[in-house]
Amino acid sequence: MRFLDRLDKAFRTNQSLLCVGLDPDPELMPVSNVLSFNRAIIDATANSVCAYKPNLAFYEALGIAGLKALEGTVAHIRSVAPDVLVIGDSKRGDVGSTSRKYAQAMFDVWGFDATTVNAYGGGESIDPFLERKDKGIIIWCRSSNPGASEFQDQSIAGTDQALFEHVAKAANSWNHHGNVCLVVGATYPEQLATIRELSPDLPILLPGIGAQGGDLQASVKAGVDVNGRNLMVSSSRGILYASDDPKTFGQAAATSARKLRDSINTILDEDNKGWRKTTS
Amino acid sequence: MRFLDRLDKAFRTNQSLLCVGLDPDPELMPVSNVLSFNRAIIDATANSVCAYKPNLAFYEALGIAGLKALEGTVAHIRSVAPDVLVIGDSKRGDVGSTSRKYAQAMFDVWGFDATTVNAYGGGESIDPFLERKDKGIIIWCRSSNPGASEFQDQSIAGTDQALFEHVAKAANSWNHHGNVCLVVGATYPEQLATIRELSPDLPILLPGIGAQGGDLQASVKAGVDVNGRNLMVSSSRGILYASDDPKTFGQAAATSARKLRDSINTILDEDNKGWRKTTS
Repeated sequence: MRFLDRLDKAFRTNQSLLCVGLDPDPELMPVSNVLSFNRAIIDATANSVCAYKPNLAFYEALGIAGLKALEGTVAHIRSVAPDVLVIGDSKRGDVGSTSRKYAQAMFDVWGFDATTVNAYGGGESIDPFLERKDKGIIIWCRSSNPGASEFQDQSIAGTDQALFEHVAKAANSWNHHGNVCLVVGATYPEQLATIRELSPDLPILLPGIGAQGGDLQASVKAGVDVNGRNLMVSSSRGILYASDDPKTFGQAAATSARKLRDSINTILDEDNKGWRKTTS
Repeated sequence: MRFLDRLDKAFRTNQSLLCVGLDPDPELMPVSNVLSFNRAIIDATANSVCAYKPNLAFYEALGIAGLKALEGTVAHIRSVAPDVLVIGDSKRGDVGSTSRKYAQAMFDVWGFDATTVNAYGGGESIDPFLERKDKGIIIWCRSSNPGASEFQDQSIAGTDQALFEHVAKAANSWNHHGNVCLVVGATYPEQLATIRELSPDLPILLPGIGAQGGDLQASVKAGVDVNGRNLMVSSSRGILYASDDPKTFGQAAATSARKLRDSINTILDEDNKGWRKTTS
């Protein structure tokens, strides 16, 4: 199945644009076992999401035990939510011969449906990712952190455009297989609108909602495509750590995820882009 | 020990600027076991190098078994070559809360002395790396691949400088703890010279010698500092796969590494920057 079809199916499964970031942090988790924690979060939210997004840094920081928990996490998602996407958030990217190995790791070892990549090395450097026609390649375009502007907002000589706009335009030109997407932080809705204009069709992964302070309403309106789709709104801490009670954190996560899914859908409805308007 | 002192000691240990990239590729290895292969390469080259540089992509592509081989590889280097640096080539970088976890992974889990990072998110995004005063933080500045120019050579408006030059200058400003270094490809000696001028003191990791076609003489002359130091010349395939004979590949790697170390030292001697001139 083409990646865009897979993504569309994932959106429709729960009528949801919500992606839950699985960033297990021992300092914040109400239980100590990473796999048990993730399983509880997945069981509680599987009916509210289009995707899960494990962030590899959180697993790597726990060593090989953490990576085994990641393996179990992906397997659990496949068993309880087979139509939901699993996005490996890894921001990988290097010269081509190395990117080829990273693509193998993300897609063949971990079996992710999509992965985030860093294209500082140019389109040629990430060709081994782009060649994977059935997988989503999500280019880190405009990040959500306070210091993102240092390089990404630098204006390129001879154009009226910032570096992040050049990346967005280049991403369009790399989209031969309909599998290219963008990461754009929710903390900068104006840049998001600019990027949506430059790349009207590319799916956008939107981190930065919740703990990082992104404005949901502004971001959803600016980020969806003309049909109100192709935006994955990612939330991690606000759902994972909705409660620190080891008995009820799953229930709190379920409530938090459902509320966020519904809030997004209400925003879509306001623009007449909600689920009742689609003929799926 | 401060990172720069650790690096200086590593250079002096074998009077060598050579870094061997440990990129085990099952398609090229003359033996099938990654750890056995790496051990043989390390045993054969430990007297010729200042550093080893395992590239994490090659281990991740082999799954958890690959990562266990990486663990064994680092332990073997520590036991046979305690003064040689181990650089985790991972090009990690993300928003700060994620970079914090990657820094833990690289330095606390794997125990690397240094790691390569991607600063597309700006200096603030990699602060959790930069805060590790005793570790080397090697910023991906100008890459060695053919498509590197797509973004890195874009000229920034209002300056006469390309993006990679801005990254090199920014790296200077992040160097509060004397632990910042740069990755600059050997395939572009002119850009290397420009970067050495902008950052006279920062250690440079130089991939791209050998299989990627970089010019050794031009790169060494352009890349060393005024004392003929602070350049790590990295070679992988030319040493690892010097022979495909399972009985003699170690000997071939030893010869290849020694030759390259000696060639670099001859180039240093030509500029009166060789080892006989230093008072170490």
